[in-house]
Amino acid sequence: MQNTAHTRLKGVLSPVLTPFKEDLSPDGKKFVAHCRWLLSRGVGLAMFGTNSEGNSLSVAEKIKLLDSLVESGVGLSRAMPGTGSCSLSEAVTLTRESVDRGAAGVLVLPPFYYKAPVDDGLFAFFSELIERVSDARLRVYLYHIPPVSMVGFSPDLVGRLKARYPEQIAGMKDTGGKWDYTELMIREFRDECFDVFAGTETILLDVMRFGGPGCITATANVNPSAIVHLYENWREANAVELQAQVNASRELFSKFPLIPAMKAAIAQFRDDETWRVVRPPLVALSDKQRTEFLRSLRTASFAIPSLA
Amino acid sequence: MQNTAHTRLKGVLSPVLTPFKEDLSPDGKKFVAHCRWLLSRGVGLAMFGTNSEGNSLSVAEKIKLLDSLVESGVGLSRAMPGTGSCSLSEAVTLTRESVDRGAAGVLVLPPFYYKAPVDDGLFAFFSELIERVSDARLRVYLYHIPPVSMVGFSPDLVGRLKARYPEQIAGMKDTGGKWDYTELMIREFRDECFDVFAGTETILLDVMRFGGPGCITATANVNPSAIVHLYENWREANAVELQAQVNASRELFSKFPLIPAMKAAIAQFRDDETWRVVRPPLVALSDKQRTEFLRSLRTASFAIPSLA
Repeated sequence: MQNTAHTRLKGVLSPVLTPFKEDLSPDGKKFVAHCRWLLSRGVGLAMFGTNSEGNSLSVAEKIKLLDSLVESGVGLSRAMPGTGSCSLSEAVTLTRESVDRGAAGVLVLPPFYYKAPVDDGLFAFFSELIERVSDARLRVYLYHIPPVSMVGFSPDLVGRLKARYPEQIAGMKDTGGKWDYTELMIREFRDECFDVFAGTETILLDVMRFGGPGCITATANVNPSAIVHLYENWREANAVELQAQVNASRELFSKFPLIPAMKAAIAQFRDDETWRVVRPPLVALSDKQRTEFLRSLRTASFAIPSLA
Repeated sequence: MQNTAHTRLKGVLSPVLTPFKEDLSPDGKKFVAHCRWLLSRGVGLAMFGTNSEGNSLSVAEKIKLLDSLVESGVGLSRAMPGTGSCSLSEAVTLTRESVDRGAAGVLVLPPFYYKAPVDDGLFAFFSELIERVSDARLRVYLYHIPPVSMVGFSPDLVGRLKARYPEQIAGMKDTGGKWDYTELMIREFRDECFDVFAGTETILLDVMRFGGPGCITATANVNPSAIVHLYENWREANAVELQAQVNASRELFSKFPLIPAMKAAIAQFRDDETWRVVRPPLVALSDKQRTEFLRSLRTASFAIPSLA
């Protein structure tokens, strides 16, 4: 399997927030509009991630959202949909449908229901996935987020997968929160076309200096320009300052549940209350939280330009 | 919403092991045969549970298996399919399809991707589920298994759900492994038509003495008769002895991964190698494990009659 025409994803991507209607169904029109806005700010589309409430959607709902992007002409050339599932059959379906629609990559959680699975079982899952999809265009990014999924990728497992599927295993999103692991992943596979994206912009500069490709971060939904600016200027003298600014913006979201807070921010700045809707088990910010949160956004010593 | 014709599930149920073909697709024919065998031993069908690899199946695969039971005439009058999902839309679909096919109850995991969800969010999930399915025949059993799902039901949440949906919230499967919780659940809701099933036969006698309805246990797949015998004779003088025998049988499985070991046992005693197949991330017993395991079954100081 080979694909010479493939462009490796780089830079800043965001787990696209999923807009819902009041009845909790995904709003395809607003989804496309938000994706267009992110792309216009230089942010790629990692839809159906943790912060997209991806696992709160059915496979059918996800395919429908992908279709809405394709039909609107936005396309998936800068997209890395989350296609992992506890179920191999669902992961295969969504991965295949994503590749068929031109997704540049797919971000795949390990099956996360059974805890402490053995590496052989995880290897078998990814092996079956890749061989069943069997498409030269497939580029799999391993989604390492043990704080949420409780199941991660051991360095040995990553090495085995990369050795067996050198073309298809394209990289990782590392949201493990442990720099030693991030460093090991980048160093170990640096020469093998394996791109280790930071799972948060707060370590973007470190990752770039170490040879990483960029970051995939939730807050790019609300602060895309500053994060992209840091990415584009990480070699400049003021990069540390840019990183500090980006960190301060993120800090504004840290006192509130992240997904509801980001949705509240977008609702406010787009003047669209329905953007606040989250799917259970998440809960929208209470009125009190929302007031506090919006006040903290307004009174911050700096603005988030995209939202201002 | 009311349904006078409804029969409350009682006794011993089992998360029906899911037989796969060599290509990892579910084998509907063998599934029906195994369900018939369980029912003939007095065991109800809690298909799509943890030990059924339920979360490793797609919604479509689960509906197809239910159809195979209905079409074969077995039906779902003694069935409590697992219909929980991280996705509200999938949980609604599978719950509705189960009720439409006559399921006596459904066993519903909380959405388990996001960790430490607030009770309000879990309440909203179950509330949306019940109101969207909106069927007087619906009986929801809460599936409490925090060691695997990492998300459980607080006593307060159970109380709120039962108060809001007294008819629909029918009980619980408690696989939490904490007797204090089990006792609290039984005591608290004893007079409210809320049946707390033990999540393992090893506490069946305790649960029965305390006023519980029975148990839902994986090893009823391989040792149904002895467990049912204990259930039917829990008031007898030899109940402690029966419990000890049942515990000893279960102990045989404790040194091996449970699902692969149960499948290896069935493969052996039905002389059908394909029964050994599990879906990734699970892994079948190695040849060495299998030899050891089968030897321990043969040389046990007692027989598991169903398998002998």
